[in-house]
Amino acid sequence: GIATVEKLDPAVIEEASLPDPLRDAVSYAVLGGGKRIRPRVLLAACTAVGGRHDAALPPAAAMELVHCFSLVHDDLPALDDDRIRRGRPSLHVHAGEAMAILAGDVMLSLAFQQLTTLPAEPGSRLGRALSTATTAMVVGQVHDTLGTGSDERDDATRLQLIHESKTGALFRAACRMGGICGHADGPAMDALDACGRSLGLMYQVVDDLLDATASPQQVGKQTGKDAAAGKLTYPGVHGITGSRRIVESLRHDAHEALSTLDERARPLLDLCDELSNRAR
Amino acid sequence: GIATVEKLDPAVIEEASLPDPLRDAVSYAVLGGGKRIRPRVLLAACTAVGGRHDAALPPAAAMELVHCFSLVHDDLPALDDDRIRRGRPSLHVHAGEAMAILAGDVMLSLAFQQLTTLPAEPGSRLGRALSTATTAMVVGQVHDTLGTGSDERDDATRLQLIHESKTGALFRAACRMGGICGHADGPAMDALDACGRSLGLMYQVVDDLLDATASPQQVGKQTGKDAAAGKLTYPGVHGITGSRRIVESLRHDAHEALSTLDERARPLLDLCDELSNRAR
Repeated sequence: GIATVEKLDPAVIEEASLPDPLRDAVSYAVLGGGKRIRPRVLLAACTAVGGRHDAALPPAAAMELVHCFSLVHDDLPALDDDRIRRGRPSLHVHAGEAMAILAGDVMLSLAFQQLTTLPAEPGSRLGRALSTATTAMVVGQVHDTLGTGSDERDDATRLQLIHESKTGALFRAACRMGGICGHADGPAMDALDACGRSLGLMYQVVDDLLDATASPQQVGKQTGKDAAAGKLTYPGVHGITGSRRIVESLRHDAHEALSTLDERARPLLDLCDELSNRAR
Repeated sequence: GIATVEKLDPAVIEEASLPDPLRDAVSYAVLGGGKRIRPRVLLAACTAVGGRHDAALPPAAAMELVHCFSLVHDDLPALDDDRIRRGRPSLHVHAGEAMAILAGDVMLSLAFQQLTTLPAEPGSRLGRALSTATTAMVVGQVHDTLGTGSDERDDATRLQLIHESKTGALFRAACRMGGICGHADGPAMDALDACGRSLGLMYQVVDDLLDATASPQQVGKQTGKDAAAGKLTYPGVHGITGSRRIVESLRHDAHEALSTLDERARPLLDLCDELSNRAR
């Protein structure tokens, strides 16, 4: 699965017949050493309900395109102003701000175009899941960058809301879209959806922990930025130990959610464990 | 048709349940006095093949969202740096650059989400037409802003290429998507597609003419910018008179393309005439 996804991406970008500088920018952002976690989640979710990977490859590519689109735009000077990504200059540093904006735009467009290579069903249901997630991601980024405004809820509630939309929505979509590709029935889809919710939030809490505790060399990007920017983070609100406990609890929830599925869910369970424990 | 489209948009934005500042930004960009030309083209194309408007309203809204997304991002300082749009401050001047980037992103996402309110067919075919167009628009903007690189073709050829992708692709999609909503058969779809190609290029040549000859008050944005920025324009390459002749010839081509359709194509023909002759 993983090897296939990594082989897939250059073809996706080649086939789009983009002009050279745009194709180079998209390649830099998409092929630049990402961990391919969301496509792996999607493929593992597909496997968990007995689906085959061939129909799941275009949505897996769409997942990665959307994820990289969001990184490229979030890194822009007007947003998080991150100059390092995956251990090298962010796209806007490498190729200029204009190109980074346009490359992000075309990556979002190509993600939806990927889904149109499939039959009307499942393409239509996949498009619904993906567009719901991309809207939620932008909403999460607005909350994260520009604050939640006159929101009177407490920090822990607001933090969960931000993380669930900013990161969680795409993980949830990865699980759902894997389920759609694998023709999951209602209960199996509910199981995958619940797993995706826990997994997505867990992933972001681990991200917050790494930002607070890891070195820039280890994670390939600036660390300690969230706290310095006064952003809400899990370690900031729940402490390091409290956040680690939350990770463990969410990992457990993800396992619980999948308990109604059979042994084909093993790769997805293993992925949950791997992501609860990642060091970059 | 027009009144319906103008009434539709606030609902589209309301229903998306965006946080207040993001919804305000999207409303500012989408409801701020646009001419609604692309939705009108889509609905007229649907009418031209005997279709009803109700199924065509979500794609019509998608059209306008995509158009406004492209304006918001193109106006950014890193791209065209346009501070005035529709006679008032551009979104990034009004709401800040971060919000303009995110609002543009969410508008593109909402456009695809609009299509998922429809059944798998025509939703899937509409998604294919729309995503092809959005990718082409970004490609056109890359050529327009960053040049066509080592392209050895002559100015007139490069200019047509830029305009066909930057503006033409969305007009062509509007015609095609109207045809899809109206269940056009193959020959009718070919007629609409050919009309869309001529109409889209014509629209942009008129835009170039207005940029060269109209006052900022008249068109609600800065004028003379393209020439000042050394961009290729129709008046620059073909002269004012030559460009007017091209407009007339493209208007004629659009009429010709529709000659195989019956009297229900009248609103689309009238719209072609109106757009060949617009003053803003």
